[in-house]
Amino acid sequence: MSVFTPVTELQLADWLKRYSVGSLAGLEAIAAGIENTNYFVTTSQGRYVLTLFEKLGAKELPFYLNLMAHLARHGIPCPAPIADITDKYLGELNGKPAALVTRLPGKSIMRPGRAECAQLGALLARMHLAGRSYPGFLENPRGPRWWRETAPLVRPFLDAERQALLDAELGFQGLHRFPDLPRGPVHGDLFRDNTLFDAGRLSAVFDFYFAGVDVLLFDVAVCANDWCLVDPDGDRALDPALVAAFLAEYAAVRPFSPSEREAWPTLLRAAALRFWLSRLFDFHLPRQGELVHAHDHKHFRNILELRASPGFAAPWVN
Amino acid sequence: MSVFTPVTELQLADWLKRYSVGSLAGLEAIAAGIENTNYFVTTSQGRYVLTLFEKLGAKELPFYLNLMAHLARHGIPCPAPIADITDKYLGELNGKPAALVTRLPGKSIMRPGRAECAQLGALLARMHLAGRSYPGFLENPRGPRWWRETAPLVRPFLDAERQALLDAELGFQGLHRFPDLPRGPVHGDLFRDNTLFDAGRLSAVFDFYFAGVDVLLFDVAVCANDWCLVDPDGDRALDPALVAAFLAEYAAVRPFSPSEREAWPTLLRAAALRFWLSRLFDFHLPRQGELVHAHDHKHFRNILELRASPGFAAPWVN
Repeated sequence: MSVFTPVTELQLADWLKRYSVGSLAGLEAIAAGIENTNYFVTTSQGRYVLTLFEKLGAKELPFYLNLMAHLARHGIPCPAPIADITDKYLGELNGKPAALVTRLPGKSIMRPGRAECAQLGALLARMHLAGRSYPGFLENPRGPRWWRETAPLVRPFLDAERQALLDAELGFQGLHRFPDLPRGPVHGDLFRDNTLFDAGRLSAVFDFYFAGVDVLLFDVAVCANDWCLVDPDGDRALDPALVAAFLAEYAAVRPFSPSEREAWPTLLRAAALRFWLSRLFDFHLPRQGELVHAHDHKHFRNILELRASPGFAAPWVN
Repeated sequence: MSVFTPVTELQLADWLKRYSVGSLAGLEAIAAGIENTNYFVTTSQGRYVLTLFEKLGAKELPFYLNLMAHLARHGIPCPAPIADITDKYLGELNGKPAALVTRLPGKSIMRPGRAECAQLGALLARMHLAGRSYPGFLENPRGPRWWRETAPLVRPFLDAERQALLDAELGFQGLHRFPDLPRGPVHGDLFRDNTLFDAGRLSAVFDFYFAGVDVLLFDVAVCANDWCLVDPDGDRALDPALVAAFLAEYAAVRPFSPSEREAWPTLLRAAALRFWLSRLFDFHLPRQGELVHAHDHKHFRNILELRASPGFAAPWVN
């Protein structure tokens, strides 16, 4: 269970007095999450999520909280940070930076079909368009700079074959940067378990704490690598029908440029590399309390191998 | 039916392209409302209300829309304006200023009991506290200045007895101004039909288009005169139990000062005068299309007579 900083009902009831959300009615720790401490909070007025930030600080948090607020007021169904009585989103609780955000309804769908992938595509594109007017800037915290810093830390834990794969992919990505592709705030981690569906409708996208400014197509590739697999627990090849449904609805809102079409296979590999590296790091160099939730790094090694294999043809819109 | 400016599905589908709310799925005119044209709008992403402003303009609308946005991001369950792709809340549709806001769930309760009055009190106080950090300013558009301007217009329609009542009340209120009472943004029109309850919880306060900066206790008095009557369709005396439940929960969030206690009977009269005058105006000097929804002005004349009678003792917190 990933509660790094416990919060008692008494502490929270007192802390909530600086907010306009009513009085505390319920508090429940959330087991999921490897970076922050999260609680479901129910008050006399509504349902919220309380997050205590274990690593993130003043450098990143304003970017994240203001981005969520920006997207929410554009109609994107993402958690909306609640401002306190002094008009601030970011507070402090038990010595940690803390924020209260709205809790959205729905459940994650772990086996999405064409309909779900299509909804995701449309929403991702709307989110990218709404993000254009967001004035904040933070470099993608899991972008190329981070890959280069992290690779040497995990490389010693790999066998020769995987070291070669890592070296080759870093070299390949280094040769392919895309300064001219459309950029903006990306979620960067929009996996199935960071979305909810309610009555068949994509009702929430959340966990923006890996967001940053990057090539928008990177976000698209992160989604495709998680949502559009033939079998997320088996064959990690991309399912052409799911990819087509996802990309077609995205393109109906924000059409892809020819350069984006060209960059697509490379970004699918970049998105796989990013998660292979972070999972290797979390597995081999865990913080205390983190181990239970370290995700399977072999999953993304396999995805990278498939996308980087010579015969790989990236599915695209029909 | 109060649709002054019709909107077709084709017009709206096109207009919505500048928002990040998905594609149009449904459009339904709202009959209620005497000031604006309102539609329920359903999209692939959610439920909204579209308002075309028939009278309000650039002077007032930024105050209203920014106030709703401010309160919503403080957790107050009020409609949140949706920003368009250029990051603006206020657009234009069919030649009218127009805005899209979130639609909240629930139904109005026209016979509130102690539990509902208590919830209203707590929420009103939270709204007043959250409004303190709102930087916008607009004088209460139905405040003392407006009473003085409007009284001469409706006075000719009154018989001698009612003319005397009006003259006496304007004179009385003129002698009692309260420059030292706590002030801030007030809703100004928080009647039962401007709130919704969902599963027993006060789930929405809406229609902020009479809001302005005034004495906070004026807002409290407006609510008491509508929510806390012995019988809204008969005996317009204040029900002491309902008033006590309402005021106690308000005071638990924002305690009343001794000056507010003293001003309470006068503000109950002021709140009655404000609605007597506006209803007289709407009845005797209607705009085209407005007549059907003109409210009963005798209701508020009766309330004013009761609150202004020599023996009146205003109920207060126990």
